[in-house]
Amino acid sequence: MPLPLPLAAPMSRTFRSPIIAAKEWVEGVSFPADRPLINVSQAAPIAAPPLALRKEIARMAVEDIEAHIYGPVLGLPALRSEIANQWSAAYHAKIEASEVAITSGCNQAFTAVMSTIAAPGDEVILPTPWYFNHKMWCDMSGVHAVPLATGDDLLPDLEAAARLITPRTRAIVLITPNNPGGVEYPAELLTKFYALAREHRISLVLDETYRDFDSRSEVPHHLFRQPDWHDTLVHLYSFSKAFRLTGHRVGALIASPDRLTQVEKYLDTIAICPNQIGQRAALWGMQNLSQWVAGERAEILDRRAAIYEGFPTLAAKGWNLLGCGAFFAYVEHPFAMPSSELAPWLVKHASILLLPGASFMPEGDARAERQLRIAFANIDRDGIHDLFTRLAQIAP
Amino acid sequence: MPLPLPLAAPMSRTFRSPIIAAKEWVEGVSFPADRPLINVSQAAPIAAPPLALRKEIARMAVEDIEAHIYGPVLGLPALRSEIANQWSAAYHAKIEASEVAITSGCNQAFTAVMSTIAAPGDEVILPTPWYFNHKMWCDMSGVHAVPLATGDDLLPDLEAAARLITPRTRAIVLITPNNPGGVEYPAELLTKFYALAREHRISLVLDETYRDFDSRSEVPHHLFRQPDWHDTLVHLYSFSKAFRLTGHRVGALIASPDRLTQVEKYLDTIAICPNQIGQRAALWGMQNLSQWVAGERAEILDRRAAIYEGFPTLAAKGWNLLGCGAFFAYVEHPFAMPSSELAPWLVKHASILLLPGASFMPEGDARAERQLRIAFANIDRDGIHDLFTRLAQIAP
Repeated sequence: MPLPLPLAAPMSRTFRSPIIAAKEWVEGVSFPADRPLINVSQAAPIAAPPLALRKEIARMAVEDIEAHIYGPVLGLPALRSEIANQWSAAYHAKIEASEVAITSGCNQAFTAVMSTIAAPGDEVILPTPWYFNHKMWCDMSGVHAVPLATGDDLLPDLEAAARLITPRTRAIVLITPNNPGGVEYPAELLTKFYALAREHRISLVLDETYRDFDSRSEVPHHLFRQPDWHDTLVHLYSFSKAFRLTGHRVGALIASPDRLTQVEKYLDTIAICPNQIGQRAALWGMQNLSQWVAGERAEILDRRAAIYEGFPTLAAKGWNLLGCGAFFAYVEHPFAMPSSELAPWLVKHASILLLPGASFMPEGDARAERQLRIAFANIDRDGIHDLFTRLAQIAP
Repeated sequence: MPLPLPLAAPMSRTFRSPIIAAKEWVEGVSFPADRPLINVSQAAPIAAPPLALRKEIARMAVEDIEAHIYGPVLGLPALRSEIANQWSAAYHAKIEASEVAITSGCNQAFTAVMSTIAAPGDEVILPTPWYFNHKMWCDMSGVHAVPLATGDDLLPDLEAAARLITPRTRAIVLITPNNPGGVEYPAELLTKFYALAREHRISLVLDETYRDFDSRSEVPHHLFRQPDWHDTLVHLYSFSKAFRLTGHRVGALIASPDRLTQVEKYLDTIAICPNQIGQRAALWGMQNLSQWVAGERAEILDRRAAIYEGFPTLAAKGWNLLGCGAFFAYVEHPFAMPSSELAPWLVKHASILLLPGASFMPEGDARAERQLRIAFANIDRDGIHDLFTRLAQIAP
């Protein structure tokens, strides 16, 4: 009997998370004392949330029974309201709590809403470089991820996008500030993509996970002011970055209440509800940590500035900075060695862990082999200096 | 323009969670002071976890940075090991940590592993009454849920199952102790179903969410002792019930390491990792609360005994007890009014919230309209007495 049993085809179509694959490169490797590992592979805070928030979690764990039992599928009502209020102020719009759902992280916000948008055989347009988990969801759902190549500014082109739309297209997914590219999409570009989506009766899914670290002081887009945004727009958000709550798994999505009724079916089936302590932590953070988050943002923007200030050292060696913002610098290296070999090479020869362009690009896209993503949020100015010094010295 | 946009077909094929629908029956309803609501609709502890566990969560929230940041996709290694050790002892088998994955609740364990087993167009056999979230996953995944009718003992029949197997069948899913039926499947029956699955090269998915409340003292099945179980068996578990951690969303699955590598793709994409505090709470519970769980089990078994002792009052009125165990009694009522009308009627006229048979049965199965599920875990002997007294008096 030819066991083991075959793998279901949709799952066989996708790949292992590049984060997991990269972790294996460093397993069992010991790094020289004078050249410790610089890990710029993942967009994740490695420090704990502020002590005040941890103490609040401790308090609720002991005192609040509700923090331990099932809650509503679409999330804690007080958290939905708080997001509605704060987002209304931030986007100069009126967003209702009934338009907000809480999810177990932003990846789940994406998979939940996409399950209501695209079915097997449908197409979804993703600018490249793309976020690998978006591509993985498409693969395992039988949805065709249609790559929309971007230029040297990493911004998607409207006409190029229009040419990719077919009768099977169901959505365009944009990430701003971008992962992995770091670029902040101009508000006017988002307005145009909104109009394009609306014209073709498809959804515009806007992942704003990194919105708290946008360098701009103005409103990042005006789409929530469109009177008909319910029909077209979906917004995604994560609490992982601002409050360092990655391990708590709390994200959010904003969409029409009708769509959320459908999202609720999905979330009930795969999660029942988001975990309660994480939701309460996010709520407490929103209500008490705005000054603290402002400091975090200032620090990230300073690190971003350090990338720009230090990059000439690498540019002199032929490197190219394609995008820089949020937690990411997306770069081109000058070497003959392709990125997918260079990335594991860097672990051994420079004690640097980062992801190669192939993690974010369609198979066969030659540009991938020149590209690398540097997730710089966890290294300070000194760390960035060390990183660039090491990269300037390598000769792979 | 005919907006809003169409709903993706797979999602439109499924229904709202009956739990959510039932909650709406009680919204805004005020119950008489002498007849407060008896809520037997959901299999969820409504009390908090023991204080010692809550204090441990408080301690880790303040002291343990790892409790707040990303962890491995397949779960906390120490928790995977603890499950492997305790399950090895319980099933008289050798289960390895590499065969265990942690998920954000048992629903997610199911959806994760099923995504590696069944693709759109495939068939999965579910005994009826079924667990509605299993049916919902099938619907929204384009997988055909094939109902396997059970008899008055609510046990699935082997020959009937064999007749339902086609070239598109990918799995049989069994729940023991059963939700909603309450019945504990005999070990010999499970052995036979294992052999049937193996003969037809399909998976046997065994959901043992309620294993901690099994009334039997012997090993519930011998399937982990089969030398080739990797090829056929998947086991699912939940931490929600034993430690009252429903709001923490922690479940587990046991399968071959090869299958878990595929499950990891799914979990990375929809969850990244299970929340860290919930996993640590589950681990601490496993290591410190076995005596406490034994007490919980004794209490549930006593409530089960109270159901059996009290049921003659209802039997005298024409009621029938089809199954009783775990957190559930599954009953037939004697009235002309169909269950799907009787259930909301009971809210108004008897202050009782429970789920009708239609929540657990295929559309059009006439038996559903005689059936009701009573999730009795949250009511003590007095509550069960009150419930039966009220039910004995109704005349819908």
